[in-house]
Amino acid sequence: MRYGYFDDAAKEYVITRPDTPTPWTNHLGSAEYGAVITNNAGGFSFYKSGAQGRFLRFRPLGIPEAQPGRYFYLRDRVSGDYWSASWQPVGKDLAAYKTTCRFGTGYAIITSSYSDITSESTYFVPRGQNFEYWLLKLSNTGKKPRKLSVFTYVEFSSEWRVYHDMVNMQYSQHIVKATYRDGIIGHHLLGNLQPDPEHFENADQCRRTFLALAGAKVTGFDTKREVFIGPYRSYANPWVVEHGKCTNSLAYGDNMCGTLQVDVDLASGGEIELVVMLGIGDAAVEGRAVKRTYGSPARAHAELQALKAYWHSHLDVLHARTPDKAFNSMVNVWNAYNNIVTFTWARAASLVYQGERDGFGYRDTVQDSLGAAALMPAEVEARLELMLTGQVANGGAMPIVKPFAHRPGHETPPPEHAFRSDDCLWLFFAVPEYVKETGDLGFFERVLPYADHGEATVLHHLKQALVFNLERRGAHGLPCGLLADWNDCLVLGQRGESVFVAFQLRYALLVYAEICRRLQREEEAHWADVQRAELDHAIQAHTWDGKWFVRAYYEDGTVLGLSLIHI
Amino acid sequence: MRYGYFDDAAKEYVITRPDTPTPWTNHLGSAEYGAVITNNAGGFSFYKSGAQGRFLRFRPLGIPEAQPGRYFYLRDRVSGDYWSASWQPVGKDLAAYKTTCRFGTGYAIITSSYSDITSESTYFVPRGQNFEYWLLKLSNTGKKPRKLSVFTYVEFSSEWRVYHDMVNMQYSQHIVKATYRDGIIGHHLLGNLQPDPEHFENADQCRRTFLALAGAKVTGFDTKREVFIGPYRSYANPWVVEHGKCTNSLAYGDNMCGTLQVDVDLASGGEIELVVMLGIGDAAVEGRAVKRTYGSPARAHAELQALKAYWHSHLDVLHARTPDKAFNSMVNVWNAYNNIVTFTWARAASLVYQGERDGFGYRDTVQDSLGAAALMPAEVEARLELMLTGQVANGGAMPIVKPFAHRPGHETPPPEHAFRSDDCLWLFFAVPEYVKETGDLGFFERVLPYADHGEATVLHHLKQALVFNLERRGAHGLPCGLLADWNDCLVLGQRGESVFVAFQLRYALLVYAEICRRLQREEEAHWADVQRAELDHAIQAHTWDGKWFVRAYYEDGTVLGLSLIHI
Repeated sequence: MRYGYFDDAAKEYVITRPDTPTPWTNHLGSAEYGAVITNNAGGFSFYKSGAQGRFLRFRPLGIPEAQPGRYFYLRDRVSGDYWSASWQPVGKDLAAYKTTCRFGTGYAIITSSYSDITSESTYFVPRGQNFEYWLLKLSNTGKKPRKLSVFTYVEFSSEWRVYHDMVNMQYSQHIVKATYRDGIIGHHLLGNLQPDPEHFENADQCRRTFLALAGAKVTGFDTKREVFIGPYRSYANPWVVEHGKCTNSLAYGDNMCGTLQVDVDLASGGEIELVVMLGIGDAAVEGRAVKRTYGSPARAHAELQALKAYWHSHLDVLHARTPDKAFNSMVNVWNAYNNIVTFTWARAASLVYQGERDGFGYRDTVQDSLGAAALMPAEVEARLELMLTGQVANGGAMPIVKPFAHRPGHETPPPEHAFRSDDCLWLFFAVPEYVKETGDLGFFERVLPYADHGEATVLHHLKQALVFNLERRGAHGLPCGLLADWNDCLVLGQRGESVFVAFQLRYALLVYAEICRRLQREEEAHWADVQRAELDHAIQAHTWDGKWFVRAYYEDGTVLGLSLIHI
Repeated sequence: MRYGYFDDAAKEYVITRPDTPTPWTNHLGSAEYGAVITNNAGGFSFYKSGAQGRFLRFRPLGIPEAQPGRYFYLRDRVSGDYWSASWQPVGKDLAAYKTTCRFGTGYAIITSSYSDITSESTYFVPRGQNFEYWLLKLSNTGKKPRKLSVFTYVEFSSEWRVYHDMVNMQYSQHIVKATYRDGIIGHHLLGNLQPDPEHFENADQCRRTFLALAGAKVTGFDTKREVFIGPYRSYANPWVVEHGKCTNSLAYGDNMCGTLQVDVDLASGGEIELVVMLGIGDAAVEGRAVKRTYGSPARAHAELQALKAYWHSHLDVLHARTPDKAFNSMVNVWNAYNNIVTFTWARAASLVYQGERDGFGYRDTVQDSLGAAALMPAEVEARLELMLTGQVANGGAMPIVKPFAHRPGHETPPPEHAFRSDDCLWLFFAVPEYVKETGDLGFFERVLPYADHGEATVLHHLKQALVFNLERRGAHGLPCGLLADWNDCLVLGQRGESVFVAFQLRYALLVYAEICRRLQREEEAHWADVQRAELDHAIQAHTWDGKWFVRAYYEDGTVLGLSLIHI
């Protein structure tokens, strides 16, 4: 652990060196308003969808890595020296610049000391809200009074669809408009785009964001990125910061940033706390309302406590105490926390996918429910309901379910060649896990629509998943692989067969029979037993060819084998 | 003209200040091997397709702008000072760093002077080749002997599909492998990807590139980007350049760069010329062959002369001499040159689209043929043949024709709602223009396939374009707008009507009748006259509503009007 340690009491991971080998990330917010933040305050935010609702820009594979982000630039108005409240992007010499980053449950706190000024910047999304807080506490730890300026920096997407923001610049470079009033910057797209609440991917009623500051008088602003940064400069040395004074630029068809300037005088030992709020909605409506209600340090700290309480209550479901401290940290905090994060954003909203691949991949998401079932059963229940409505009536699963666009009963089913064989079979792991955690046997009787048409009980959804695979068996009586089985790269097609899925189907039949017996549906249980016996026969006959353990049969009958050496 | 001037004799634009307000770009190569370069040596290269064959990485909307690119870093081995042969990315103070960029016809020459060293870097793609040259001539203009190191830098894509390179990092970050032998770096994707020459978009047999250097002994190399740049650094201050010595890193699942180091001793007045070749193919096969045949300054200069001769012969087709020098520059060189560039890459391969939107947009490309018809009739002929085979048998046009993937006679036609009304009508501008330039009346009789099935003469292709629009008329007898008319944002749909397309169709009928009379097909000409008279009647009856000039009828019959005030 050269870069940090677990603080189990606080349920935080503490990064003690900012120059980590790669950006380390935490997640803020919820599936509704999500954010990724790195230990150097890089990252992006999105509304409902990392790909279609991305309002903060971030550059994949950038040099320097993981820029831009949510920055506070600090400048000494006397000496002209400047730095950032996170080590990057200014990147002062680490001999003089000391910094620690605490990644907690849905929040990040970066504490830095440089030139006798200590800054503590805290980032989080309050529970149930569509905005994020950036709190900045500045302390003068030196003996002399200090005159400082603070500049916020955030870079807005020109288009909420990240692909268009990056590629369709003949359009996206001409549609942004900034406003400024009473310490609030407004960011919106030009008025020729009409609200279209029915189609989130094309247009949304909320394509307005705001950046508000409370706690001190705003003395200037900039919203034109090129003005703030200046030509042939970088985030390390923005022109406006170097020169110390905002130009009050209003973006109109430009790349847009959000910079609010505050000038602060701090006596020796003096402190000040600023509250920045960045969120979804009209600056004049939601922006004002948020600033009025939430724009005070007291309220912000109360919200942070509520957020911690919420997360900790979920983590406290399970508590291990063993002689192995690292094991305890993992089980009690980090594995559980990461399970919930993965469950919430389904892997898309990260620096790996850049938020662009969004929606819930079927297999992943049903699997992810397993890790969260004990921690947040209510959320898992809702997610499983969503995923069950992502099954089409034939029992197969849609490859991706988009929570922001899903219309159960009205989706077009995937073409036959696009089904994966295993997707729907993961329900036999996740649904019983949820029921075991909650004792909610009634869940099996709940009636839910299929994606395309019709509706049925959860039990019948499960049965259809069995039927889907039983009906798609090949020459050896084993389930066909279709577009993919567990191995997403193995395309066995409509006639090739997968032994892995045969095992999975066998397990599913066993689970189904157990459930039916619990529900006193002996006839159904018997049906499953019979199917299983038949499948066992095929498995026994066709999974050992005398030399290889069979992994799959390709469409042309050739075998993909696994070596049994050393077993 | 604060930033440069036209040098008409050389057919070059000379940029005299490197800090242009935005990156200025030139295009190198051909539709087969294309490259974009900025006046600060930023840009990217691609094989056949900017989106599917992108092997150099480039960041959209970057800060600093337009990075990375094709860099030469120069370092004084005595003082440790370093700079780049283009002003960026090191960006020395312009008081001490003097530089000029010449954008010529398919080449760029950047000449810089700093610290008594003059560098001239010349970038171009030799005619008919799948590699690009970077020539570097270094001169010691000072009185003291100098010891320098030169480092090349280029950043390879991890995946040739640019979208996957930027987004699908769980995959793309693990598939790159570098090799080095005899002064040649090889870049390829891991061996689990089999050649698949039939499907360019999925995989290609040539997913190997090489970077070779001739003219001096290579003393080191680096291919791991993170090693070369170093953590939390940028292109302005790479670790390896600052420390003066390559580490011989071999990328394997890393971000990959191409750095070859050469150490050069220059007496006062001394010169040296290095030849870098970056291209498509196996380092051990194509790389070696290219280096052997092309790896000398003499050969490189001969290729540059041949390239200039090729371009200039096209530009010399038309020569204006007027008292207005700027007009002459435009007509004789720049308008013509830009017509050809636009014609060649169809707008996708630029900093506007980042190369990602590729293939030939139907309307754009047929329009672009007009500007190139006089300059390069043979290429226009081939392009028009391609676009005519992008018409489906009903006469409508496919929205996009992908030259690298197009299979005439085997394409799936677009669904009815995806046709644009005007696309196919631009043929009545471009095809006659080509015939007028060449006198090739026989072109109308040439038999070409339709995109989906069947084949017919060019004349019949044209007729089908008329029929397509005549058959899709609405309640007022005007052609329907379909997905779009000239205004790509105006979706009038299957029943809404477009007066603009009515005018365009009227013109097309007129042109068609003229062609038919030239070909002595009086019956066809008469058919067109009758159709036109009928259309005239509808136009006269429905384009002036007494108050507004009608632009379009929406599907519900409401009118989109244009004001006639001040006419």
